[in-house]
Amino acid sequence: MVPNLVTALTGPINELEQRMLESVPAIERWFRLEWMEHTPTFYCAVDLRNAGYRLTPVDTDLFPEGFNHLTPQMLPLAVQAAMAAIEKICPEAKNLLLVPSRHCESASYLEHLQRLVQIFTHAGLNVRLGSADPGLAAPQVLKAPDGGELVVEPLLRQRTRLGLKDFDPCTILLNDDLRAGVPRALQNLYEQYLLPPLHAGWATRRKSRHFRSYEEVAKKFSKLMGMDPWLINPMVAHCGEVDAGSEQGLECVRAHCETMLAKQRRKFKEYAIAERPFVVVKADVGGLGAGVLTVRDVRELDGERLQRALARPQGLEPGVSEVIIQEGVPTCERIEDATAEPVVCTIDRYVVGGYYRVHDGRGSDESLQSPQARYVPLAFAEGHLLPARAKTGASAPNRFYMYGVIGRLAMLAAAYELEATDPDAEDYA
Amino acid sequence: MVPNLVTALTGPINELEQRMLESVPAIERWFRLEWMEHTPTFYCAVDLRNAGYRLTPVDTDLFPEGFNHLTPQMLPLAVQAAMAAIEKICPEAKNLLLVPSRHCESASYLEHLQRLVQIFTHAGLNVRLGSADPGLAAPQVLKAPDGGELVVEPLLRQRTRLGLKDFDPCTILLNDDLRAGVPRALQNLYEQYLLPPLHAGWATRRKSRHFRSYEEVAKKFSKLMGMDPWLINPMVAHCGEVDAGSEQGLECVRAHCETMLAKQRRKFKEYAIAERPFVVVKADVGGLGAGVLTVRDVRELDGERLQRALARPQGLEPGVSEVIIQEGVPTCERIEDATAEPVVCTIDRYVVGGYYRVHDGRGSDESLQSPQARYVPLAFAEGHLLPARAKTGASAPNRFYMYGVIGRLAMLAAAYELEATDPDAEDYA
Repeated sequence: MVPNLVTALTGPINELEQRMLESVPAIERWFRLEWMEHTPTFYCAVDLRNAGYRLTPVDTDLFPEGFNHLTPQMLPLAVQAAMAAIEKICPEAKNLLLVPSRHCESASYLEHLQRLVQIFTHAGLNVRLGSADPGLAAPQVLKAPDGGELVVEPLLRQRTRLGLKDFDPCTILLNDDLRAGVPRALQNLYEQYLLPPLHAGWATRRKSRHFRSYEEVAKKFSKLMGMDPWLINPMVAHCGEVDAGSEQGLECVRAHCETMLAKQRRKFKEYAIAERPFVVVKADVGGLGAGVLTVRDVRELDGERLQRALARPQGLEPGVSEVIIQEGVPTCERIEDATAEPVVCTIDRYVVGGYYRVHDGRGSDESLQSPQARYVPLAFAEGHLLPARAKTGASAPNRFYMYGVIGRLAMLAAAYELEATDPDAEDYA
Repeated sequence: MVPNLVTALTGPINELEQRMLESVPAIERWFRLEWMEHTPTFYCAVDLRNAGYRLTPVDTDLFPEGFNHLTPQMLPLAVQAAMAAIEKICPEAKNLLLVPSRHCESASYLEHLQRLVQIFTHAGLNVRLGSADPGLAAPQVLKAPDGGELVVEPLLRQRTRLGLKDFDPCTILLNDDLRAGVPRALQNLYEQYLLPPLHAGWATRRKSRHFRSYEEVAKKFSKLMGMDPWLINPMVAHCGEVDAGSEQGLECVRAHCETMLAKQRRKFKEYAIAERPFVVVKADVGGLGAGVLTVRDVRELDGERLQRALARPQGLEPGVSEVIIQEGVPTCERIEDATAEPVVCTIDRYVVGGYYRVHDGRGSDESLQSPQARYVPLAFAEGHLLPARAKTGASAPNRFYMYGVIGRLAMLAAAYELEATDPDAEDYA
C-alpha cells in the first residue's frame, strides 16, 4: 500500500535531501560511531513534521503504540532488528514478559500488542503479557479485532524477580509510559533487564530535556553535513512550574513566545519563507492527554486558553504544570486532501518502518494526535534504500531515507537524554 | 512478484513444517546460542531441494553471485544485516574493497555487483572494486544492463596492506571463489579483514568436508526437534583421489553408489515413498563447471560417463579428481511447468531473501545450474514471518520459514567447516 503522497517539492528541503542521499556512507558511519558510545533506545516512534523548507521531529515516544500501522512487508525488518537487540542484551533469553499500557484498551492497541508478540516470538522468545494493574487477580482474555486472543496475566513479584505464574523472564519489556507513576511491582528489579528503563517513563521524563539532547545531536550532525541545524531542529524554551491561572505564570510563557516568534521571523527572512510564524505551548510531561496551544500572536494568549491547553485528566493535581514552548513546524504533507505527518519506528538502532498519521479535520499547523486520526503505512521497503540510485527529477518524490535519518537522530537524542537522566549514572563512569 | 509456487502438499514435509512453525522461539533461540560459539559466514547462498517428503541443502556457496535475483523489497533487510555485520567486524570502517570474480563477466553478474555495492554503501561504507587479475593495468569501466557503470581498478599491494590508488580499506570482501588458486596480492594480509577467509575458497574447500559439518549440525538440530535427521540431511560419501579412467577408481565410486542406493531404499520403505532412489556423483571441488552424474543403477556407471561428469575445464590437470557421492534429492517444485529449486541468501546470521532457480529443459532429478537457468525472486517479505499465524489449511502453501531454517543450518555448517579447516586454528583455542 503506497500512500498518495503529495509534498511541496521546492525550497531548502530538496537541497537537504539531495545532500543526505549523496552522503549515505558518511551518515551511516556517523551513526555507527555514535552507537559505539551510546546505547540505542530499545524501541521508539518519532513524529516528524516536514514543512517543505525544514524537517524536524516533534515528539519522541519511548513506549510506541502504533506498530500495527507498519506494513506487514516490513515485519522481517522488525524481527531482524529485535534479534540483534536480544543478542546484545541477553542471548540466552528464553522468555520475554511484555507489560502493556494500563491506559489503552482500544482495538488498535490490541493489534499493536499482537504485532509486538509476533515480532518477539519470531525473534526467538516465548512472550507472555503481564498487567501492572494491581486489581487484576486472574488471567484476562482480550479479543483482538482479527478474532485472535491475548491473555493478560497478573504480575507475580517475588523478592528480587518479576514474572508470571510458571514464567520467569530474562527481560521485561515495558509498553506502559508510566504516566501515573511506577508500579511497586516494577521497582528495584536488579536481576532482570527492564526495558526501557524506568526513568524513560513520564513519571521522570521531560520533553524539554529531550529537546535539549536533540539540539546537541542536531548540531553534531549538522556539522558533519555542513548545514544550518535550524533545518532539522525546532527551537524549544521551558518554563519551570507554571500556575497557568496566575499572571506570573502567564508572563513567563508570554515572554518565551515573544522571543521565539521573533527568532523565527528572522529565520523566515533568511530563507525567504513567506509564512506566518507560530509557536506551540504544551505540558512538559507527556502522556497526559492534554492539548496543544498554537500561538501566532502573544496578544491571543490569555490564562483561560493556557489553562485549557494544560488541563489535566481527572485525578491528577490541577493547576500547576511544567510548560514547554516549541517553535511551530507546519506539515506540508497531504494524503487525499487530509493533513498528514510521518511517524518513524525503530527497534534497537534500526528503522523498521513507519506510517502516516492522517487527520481530515485538522490544519497543517495543528496537532494530529487525536482519536479521530487514521493511519496509513509508509511504503518504506523500497524507499528506505532506493532514493540514492534514482536520478534527480526522474523519480517520484521520495523522502523515506531522510525521514529515517531524522527519526534516528531523535532516537539518538533519547539515548543521550536517558544517559544524562539515569539515576544510576555512576555506572557510566 | 510472487512466484506461482506448486508443491506436493502431502507427506512428512508438512509435519516437519508444522513442527517448525510451532517451535519458532525454540529454533531461533537455538540459532542464537550457536552464534555465541560460532562465527556466521559473511554472506552465503544455499541451494535447497524440496522433495515433498524431505528438504535438504545441496550446495552452499560462500561467494554468492545471485543477489540481483532478490526482490528489491527485501533490500532493507540486506542493508540492516550488512550494518550488523560491519558493526561487529570493524565499526570504524570507512572503506570496503570488493574483489569481484575473475570468472564471470555476464550482465547478470554485473547486476549482482551493483546490488552488493548498493547494500554496502547504504550500510555506511565507501565501496570500490579491485580486480585480482594481474593483467589489469588501468581502471576498467563496465557497463551494466541498466546503463549504470562499474569501475574495476587494479589492486595495489603494499607490504602489509591491500588497496587501490588513494583507497585504503579496512575490510576486503571477496566475491571470487578462488577456484584458480589464491592470487599473490591476497596472500599474507594480516592488518585488514579479508572476508570470507582464503580457506573458504575452492583452492582449499571440499564439498565432502562441508557435508560432514552439515551432518553434525543436522543431527543437533534434529535432536532439538525430535525428528529423523534424514529428513533434512542428504547422505554423502567420498572417494579420495579417483582416476576416473582406471578400474580401481571406478570401483570405489561404484561401491559407494551401491551402498547409498541400498540405504536410500530402506529409508523410502520406512516412509512409504514410492519413488526410485538415485545418487549423484560429482567433483569434490566446486567452481570447476564440471557436470553432475545421476546414477539410478550401478550397472549404468562406466568409466566414460564418469570421466565426462568429472571433466575439468581446459588448463586444469585432467584425469584425477576427488569425488563425492551424494544421495539424490529430487525437487518437487514447479513454476509454470518448469523445474524449480529455492536458493536462500544470508548476510551475517540473517536470511535476507531468496529466489528460485528455474530450468525449462531439466527434470526434477537433474542439476538446474546452467547458463539456461532463469531466476524468480522468492517473496520472502511476508512469508518469512507470517506462516505461524496462518491457520492450517487456511492459507496458501508457505515454505519460506522452513527454507530460511534449512538455509541457515547449511550456513552454520559452513561456519563449523571453516573453523575446522582454518590454517590459523590455534587462534580458536
